[in-house]
Amino acid sequence: MEEASLLTNIHYPSDLRELPVEQLPQVCDELRTFIIDELAKNPGHFASSLGVVELTVALHYVFNTPEDRIVWDVGHQAYAHKILTGRKERFNTNRHLHGLKPFPSPDESEYDSFTCGHASNSISAALGMAVAAAKGNTKRHVVAVIGDGAMSGGLAFEGLNNASGMPNDLLIILNDNNMSIDRSVGGVRELLHQLQTNPTYNLIRYKTAQKLYSWGWIGEEGRRAIIRFNNSLKSLLTRQQNIFEGMNIRYFGPSDGHNVVELVETLRKIKEMKGPKLLHIHTVKGKGFEPAEKEATLWHAPGKFDKTTGEIIHVDTSNLPSRFQDVFGHTIVELAQKNERIVGVTPAMPSGCSLNIMMEKMPTRAYDVGIAEGHAVTFSCGMAKDGLLPFCNIYSSFAQRAYDNIIHDMAISRLNVVLCLDRAGLVGEDGPTHHGAFDLAYLRPIPNITVASPMDEHELRHLMFTAQLPDMGPFVIRYPRGRGSLVDWQCPMKEIKTGTGRKLKEGRDVAVLTIGPIGNTAAAAIREAEAEHIGLSVAHYDIRFLKPLDEDLLLEISKAGYSRIITVEDGVRTGGMGSAVLEWMNDNGYETKMVKRLGLPDEFVEHGKCDELWAICGIDKESIKKAITL
Amino acid sequence: MEEASLLTNIHYPSDLRELPVEQLPQVCDELRTFIIDELAKNPGHFASSLGVVELTVALHYVFNTPEDRIVWDVGHQAYAHKILTGRKERFNTNRHLHGLKPFPSPDESEYDSFTCGHASNSISAALGMAVAAAKGNTKRHVVAVIGDGAMSGGLAFEGLNNASGMPNDLLIILNDNNMSIDRSVGGVRELLHQLQTNPTYNLIRYKTAQKLYSWGWIGEEGRRAIIRFNNSLKSLLTRQQNIFEGMNIRYFGPSDGHNVVELVETLRKIKEMKGPKLLHIHTVKGKGFEPAEKEATLWHAPGKFDKTTGEIIHVDTSNLPSRFQDVFGHTIVELAQKNERIVGVTPAMPSGCSLNIMMEKMPTRAYDVGIAEGHAVTFSCGMAKDGLLPFCNIYSSFAQRAYDNIIHDMAISRLNVVLCLDRAGLVGEDGPTHHGAFDLAYLRPIPNITVASPMDEHELRHLMFTAQLPDMGPFVIRYPRGRGSLVDWQCPMKEIKTGTGRKLKEGRDVAVLTIGPIGNTAAAAIREAEAEHIGLSVAHYDIRFLKPLDEDLLLEISKAGYSRIITVEDGVRTGGMGSAVLEWMNDNGYETKMVKRLGLPDEFVEHGKCDELWAICGIDKESIKKAITL
Repeated sequence: MEEASLLTNIHYPSDLRELPVEQLPQVCDELRTFIIDELAKNPGHFASSLGVVELTVALHYVFNTPEDRIVWDVGHQAYAHKILTGRKERFNTNRHLHGLKPFPSPDESEYDSFTCGHASNSISAALGMAVAAAKGNTKRHVVAVIGDGAMSGGLAFEGLNNASGMPNDLLIILNDNNMSIDRSVGGVRELLHQLQTNPTYNLIRYKTAQKLYSWGWIGEEGRRAIIRFNNSLKSLLTRQQNIFEGMNIRYFGPSDGHNVVELVETLRKIKEMKGPKLLHIHTVKGKGFEPAEKEATLWHAPGKFDKTTGEIIHVDTSNLPSRFQDVFGHTIVELAQKNERIVGVTPAMPSGCSLNIMMEKMPTRAYDVGIAEGHAVTFSCGMAKDGLLPFCNIYSSFAQRAYDNIIHDMAISRLNVVLCLDRAGLVGEDGPTHHGAFDLAYLRPIPNITVASPMDEHELRHLMFTAQLPDMGPFVIRYPRGRGSLVDWQCPMKEIKTGTGRKLKEGRDVAVLTIGPIGNTAAAAIREAEAEHIGLSVAHYDIRFLKPLDEDLLLEISKAGYSRIITVEDGVRTGGMGSAVLEWMNDNGYETKMVKRLGLPDEFVEHGKCDELWAICGIDKESIKKAITL
Repeated sequence: MEEASLLTNIHYPSDLRELPVEQLPQVCDELRTFIIDELAKNPGHFASSLGVVELTVALHYVFNTPEDRIVWDVGHQAYAHKILTGRKERFNTNRHLHGLKPFPSPDESEYDSFTCGHASNSISAALGMAVAAAKGNTKRHVVAVIGDGAMSGGLAFEGLNNASGMPNDLLIILNDNNMSIDRSVGGVRELLHQLQTNPTYNLIRYKTAQKLYSWGWIGEEGRRAIIRFNNSLKSLLTRQQNIFEGMNIRYFGPSDGHNVVELVETLRKIKEMKGPKLLHIHTVKGKGFEPAEKEATLWHAPGKFDKTTGEIIHVDTSNLPSRFQDVFGHTIVELAQKNERIVGVTPAMPSGCSLNIMMEKMPTRAYDVGIAEGHAVTFSCGMAKDGLLPFCNIYSSFAQRAYDNIIHDMAISRLNVVLCLDRAGLVGEDGPTHHGAFDLAYLRPIPNITVASPMDEHELRHLMFTAQLPDMGPFVIRYPRGRGSLVDWQCPMKEIKTGTGRKLKEGRDVAVLTIGPIGNTAAAAIREAEAEHIGLSVAHYDIRFLKPLDEDLLLEISKAGYSRIITVEDGVRTGGMGSAVLEWMNDNGYETKMVKRLGLPDEFVEHGKCDELWAICGIDKESIKKAITL
């Protein structure tokens, strides 16, 4: 195939830049084919990466990367970027243990200028780099690429709000596909939508563009006045406001994000302009692969698929345990049918946390607030203050962004919000930015809150039932990504007394204390250990509530005379559940020398399959068994 | 004095609502006089409260509080609100231990609808209440009052962005005084400034207001279209964008926030309108007290003053130890003069953290980014990525808002940002929202970061010097509000080896381990204990680095055979420094039964003088002495 020849010879952007601009469309075609081929067999983030193929090529063509900086927001979309920056040959290791990292990372490549993974940080980070460049008097250009979904995050706004206040030549590319993972939410989304679809505006825009640009694009002098005039006119034409120029950031676009030649021209024109500026481009998620264009959410991370038929290869899951997220999704509907006060809140993860089940069945009682974790919590608190009972579902690692909201808005006033932390513990291939490693440790010091983790799907249902009973106060339920241990997850729900753990198994010699689903791993380890060591008798306790701790249970454990007490948690050892046990025993005058704490180490855990990572971190079945039989 | 008669008879808003509107200006005058009289002798937040006297009266007059909700943002400004809502007689206890709380709190009054203290949460919380009201089909009105400074916080933007997306009749009052505590920052500030000062716009606005309003203010139908037209016209006239209407929030104003009769009229007109709306009012901080009008920052919280002469009563501080914040402020300048890479960053607290010293001396090297803690950290990380060395100074409790930025943007990539946490530990009268109680516990689980706390001003300087040496990675220095222990804080600076503590005093029987300035309290307790108990020999160790821990020192302590090891910290016991010591001893096979941990309890500590609170929490000199001599 003749066309494949271009990409074959591109290893770094410098190779790309040797091509004439006319050949770039072919490069894009080849890149797209390469991505489709690779992702069909090695799953990853699909639709986002297809959407920015042209943008990626244009950026590396026009800018002198890596000396110039491209800051990707989130990094879902950066596969073309990886392939063009020295990682094509290793792309088949993408997301594998010790293979290419799931998101751009400065530890992997000098072309990856900043940590990616959590949305909305690109403008602030890039602004810092642009200010550093201006200060160091270098010619370095800095480009932030942010999607319209990430633009709803408060951090992006804080970055924008500061962009015009200090000397810098930052270029922000707003990659507008009217959708983050699910869909964009809020006023900004509507604003963008109308800006780009108003036909009157578009007509006039094209006719007058040259003229306006010839006024506006000359030098720094009078820049702000011209922007304002341009802006006011545009606003009158569009009958719509432009938030960016209101903040003194020069606005260009909207441009077709799939016309690579036009993108190159545009980028060349605005590249040397002084001051902060924003180029608004319109792209289609999944571009070039029809099924993904039609259902971008489904194709966000589709798993393996048949690239010819466009069919996602579904594994038969009928005999597998259910996913915790689905148990959450069905159970909140079940509870909400009986308790009118219940509402659901998610920051942009309706399909990820399965709140979409409630959004379909009870559309007026479930809120997707966009990528805005802080708001999700405080908004929930406001609702709780006036009689509603919000279940606010946030991925554990993203809940770090709502830490102050949890302390200040939820805990101080003891508001009855149920905070469900999905993706708690190691999440696997999404790596260090996404592991829910810290939640137990960061929640434990907060007064007034209840923190629980269910060992299985039935326990999740019981905890959800319990959390919506009257006057339970702030109630956190953490559970992991993926499947639980029960195929038949449905069960009648019952109250679990707050602050009670349970003894799962009697034993004489060793006690294993667990919290959450890792208890099942521990149970298997205990079974094997006892089978392999005749006479060994191991007790198993499910701590269940990190806070309040079950003091009766801890008293029993402390007094029982176990030769070893092993705590196991899918979270950092530092400050986690094991630490809570140590503290309690110390406060109550018990010796702690026989306690051994298993959990995540004091380092950011890399990406890989969960099984692999649990083994590396010493919390898999073998490691627990070893700790028991030591 | 005849005029005083009105306020005398107002105990609750219901009393206020019985007056004819013409008497409200007199009520405002009396309220203002009352506040000035009270604050002159009992210090508190002064300028902000004077600025919203008319607004407060108008709100309680027009709205049916407490059934209708007023959500104050931050709450600095809520003294008139307190005085009008049943707390006039106890207002002389404001900010005292067991007296009125420093900020509005639902625990104190049903008129205080939400926790106040941290900026920018009002819109999200009020939106939650407004949605709850719409859902419950009540006639309840919800009003959020937010200053222009707080509007720069990302959380406020997240709230705004969601306001138009769900059924609600929220009213947002933008209290625009072009200043938060110091001054507003960023694009939004400029936008607001131009919106209100453009003479052409104001002229046309008044002439056409009636007509436009008669179109726009009728019913819900066509609301959005009319807003847009209105908006576009306004924009063309002002040559300026209006961010709010761009987000489909109906915009009214700007109005004179000191004309109480006009405010009442305006509020009555817009009160029953459907959908989210924003009233932009212009106020003057310190209004009605000339010195405060002129220098609002100085009069934010001036301490005692002479209400006749307008002079702040300065206590002679020449023989007192210096404030930690000033040592920071002078030392960063000293370091920056030698190290060109150093820059300073503060989120809206230049005078609070004394970065204003650098802003004056090196205006191009210090950045006030507005109330935007998350951005402050990520922006600093971007600068660090490209060669600058930012000292980012944030109050400890506000740094909770940057928790994810610290983990995701700073720690994962080990960026060389120096995060200085001022106001760490108990802060006194500002109470539970402002105590820096959690930082040691929430920072400790984060990999890759260094966390230190200086015992005195010299140590602060040494730590700042150390943090700016090459390749130190993420470096946190926490220190408290107020004064240190040394009058002569200047000293030559030297490196402190990372992860080293120090033995301050030899001893045989008991070891006291401290971190930070509370070490001085402990030292005094040790002196007294030894004096009172002849033969008692107490060792004192300054842990200094929470992370990495000084393992050699801990080894020495663990092996020394102390009958008691007492850890003392001005932070929560749960997960804090004492917990770190327990964990280390446990990991290394040492018994921990003799360890006793002193620190803040697992509850939100109330407001009061620091001395009082330390005693209550058991970390004052007497409590430490008691623990030693037990």
